[in-house]
Amino acid sequence: MKKRNCFIGQSGGPTTAINASLAGIIAKCIETQEFEHVYGMINGIKGLIEHKYMDLLDIFKTEENINHLKHSPAMYLGSCRYKLPTYQEDPQSYESLFRTFEELEITDFYYIGGNDSMDTVAKLSTYAATIQSPIRFIGIPKTIDNDLMGTDHTPGFGSAAKYVATSMLEIAYDSSIYKLNAVTIVEIMGRNAGWLTAASALARTQYNEAPDLIYLPEVPFNKESFLNDIREVFKKKRSVIIAVSEGIRDENGEFLDSDSKYAKRDAFGHILHSGTGKVLETMVYQEFKCKVRSIELNVLQRCAMHIASQVDLDESFEIGRCAVETSMAGKTGVMMVFNRVNNYPYEISCDSKDVSSIANLEQRIPIHWINEAHNDITQELYDYLFPLIQGEVTISYENGIPQYANINHLKND
Amino acid sequence: MKKRNCFIGQSGGPTTAINASLAGIIAKCIETQEFEHVYGMINGIKGLIEHKYMDLLDIFKTEENINHLKHSPAMYLGSCRYKLPTYQEDPQSYESLFRTFEELEITDFYYIGGNDSMDTVAKLSTYAATIQSPIRFIGIPKTIDNDLMGTDHTPGFGSAAKYVATSMLEIAYDSSIYKLNAVTIVEIMGRNAGWLTAASALARTQYNEAPDLIYLPEVPFNKESFLNDIREVFKKKRSVIIAVSEGIRDENGEFLDSDSKYAKRDAFGHILHSGTGKVLETMVYQEFKCKVRSIELNVLQRCAMHIASQVDLDESFEIGRCAVETSMAGKTGVMMVFNRVNNYPYEISCDSKDVSSIANLEQRIPIHWINEAHNDITQELYDYLFPLIQGEVTISYENGIPQYANINHLKND
Repeated sequence: MKKRNCFIGQSGGPTTAINASLAGIIAKCIETQEFEHVYGMINGIKGLIEHKYMDLLDIFKTEENINHLKHSPAMYLGSCRYKLPTYQEDPQSYESLFRTFEELEITDFYYIGGNDSMDTVAKLSTYAATIQSPIRFIGIPKTIDNDLMGTDHTPGFGSAAKYVATSMLEIAYDSSIYKLNAVTIVEIMGRNAGWLTAASALARTQYNEAPDLIYLPEVPFNKESFLNDIREVFKKKRSVIIAVSEGIRDENGEFLDSDSKYAKRDAFGHILHSGTGKVLETMVYQEFKCKVRSIELNVLQRCAMHIASQVDLDESFEIGRCAVETSMAGKTGVMMVFNRVNNYPYEISCDSKDVSSIANLEQRIPIHWINEAHNDITQELYDYLFPLIQGEVTISYENGIPQYANINHLKND
Repeated sequence: MKKRNCFIGQSGGPTTAINASLAGIIAKCIETQEFEHVYGMINGIKGLIEHKYMDLLDIFKTEENINHLKHSPAMYLGSCRYKLPTYQEDPQSYESLFRTFEELEITDFYYIGGNDSMDTVAKLSTYAATIQSPIRFIGIPKTIDNDLMGTDHTPGFGSAAKYVATSMLEIAYDSSIYKLNAVTIVEIMGRNAGWLTAASALARTQYNEAPDLIYLPEVPFNKESFLNDIREVFKKKRSVIIAVSEGIRDENGEFLDSDSKYAKRDAFGHILHSGTGKVLETMVYQEFKCKVRSIELNVLQRCAMHIASQVDLDESFEIGRCAVETSMAGKTGVMMVFNRVNNYPYEISCDSKDVSSIANLEQRIPIHWINEAHNDITQELYDYLFPLIQGEVTISYENGIPQYANINHLKND
């Protein structure tokens, strides 16, 4: 007897794996045979406040369909960057949302996103408790930054890490061909946490030492040490390849690009960094007067589905399935998390934690996972990262390009 | 009875397909059973002048080995950016080179590269004729820019085009998620020829219209038209995605980034452009005050083997094989070319042309393949480009990253 109805939303920045979690939730809802409607909010909680949603069971009827969604990048349901106000600040939004929930007889609410989305889950579940609503609110983490607390790692990170490692390897081959002194600086996403930059170390093979140097936002950047590091590498080889986080900052906590004319802020007031690579490029050229190139990996880190990690997609799908089990088991106000059981062979388990103890906190690289010279990672961090990029996805191609899901519904109105 | 010995060299900038041509030459040399030695110059003609070379038959003994080389990016033999002086300017280099040829009983010389490399082939074959040397000199084209004369297209272009089309598609998905006005500018390589930027049009599907606008260096860039074009697109949709060649210039022939502090020159005096996207980003922001992001695809266009075009790799391999047939048939001073027989179904043939009539010329997009508004390509150009990106390569992965050829020999000395 079908008696459940749920909402699923996606929020924050895109990753290649966020649709895999959506696919996992849909698949599990179908499998339980208890869901009459599985609604997708269009453009997250912001869209839902404006009554924008669609019934996903009308579209995702077959395993093939769901698998196609799992292998499509960005966000099928669209996103919002909207900080839900507190109930005290904006009671109308809460009342309007819960009126919609009541009309549609909603039993479960799944929200896939980063820190700001978990804040939304925490607020809604707290409000639900005060009005004694039985609806269960579950957060499913995603972020390429891997900076959420309480989970071993975040869905989406492994695929971004695989893109970074593969690109670093290919850039290293590209940089190997000339007999001249050259410095290549690869700027990688990561505002406060250097996980993705650290993943560039996975590019190292018996034929490739790059990245030769890695600079992370967890430790202060020092110009003199940086130039000295390069000088040391030049003693051994001609081509120096550097991985640097966009968010590195100096001893005073100043971002390197903070006075850049390209610095902007997002809706939450976070500075959107770009230009760290260019700043370092100039610094290196002034010192060494050699060929210098900076490469910003940019948004392809979070959307290059064609080189996604199979482990990441499978885990992201699985955590979606677990989210449905968790709410059906009666939990609410929790974020789904991974616990690592073992590195080699790699093994994880799914669990859930109180979201209000996690939201708005930031997981950065522990200092003991960064080498003493602050220009590389330790073996322990390498071992942590390694399992997350394993496995290659099989995607469909048509006319020479990947065949991704229909997102025409995001273009309306 | 083995009686032939040859040199193979690679020169200019890397592509994902240049090792496929090297692999094709080696494979054909082995197949003929007439070659005793197949020497590879290390770092092109410059390395050869310094007596740097290796015997490739010591390494490439099996089909598997050769296939692995075919699927490795950048340049196995290393490169040089060295403009061979004329004989009159530098007789010593010519005499030294031909002394080496004589010592090693060289019969055939294969040089894989772009325009500057074809100039080297022309000069060496001309000199050979004046001293009545029987050595055959064959040029094998490669460039991601597709700007060589005399051939339907160049090896390496199709893979770069597939990378551009795939990245454009993934960026379009990434850009689709927010409900806000935004302009995304994708800067694509191509100094004087817009072929690679044009290939971004191959990203269009039933779910994706991007790129909405395409700007090519073959037609003058006009700021007012550009801003008007964006204004028109905004009437229909929120997210405007633009493909722009790094080499666009205004009505006075001025590059947009010519006064950029990042402008540099290569060994041939060509300006190395970067920053066109950033210049446009500022221009768009000042006019529309909306979210603007510029993305420079950078060197990954020419080294991302994991998303190479199977058609391109197969053709690049085949043109290497044809080069051996051509020199064995007695030709010299020629560049190998493709003739297109048909678009649908796609069919090409290999041929050769007098290299001195081709070298140093530049093939740009014919104006009638650009739309009247100068902001898109025609169907005819689409049909020309389409076959070149078809087919996906199968590469080996190890530890989550591609497994590419051993290039440790490039790191010596």
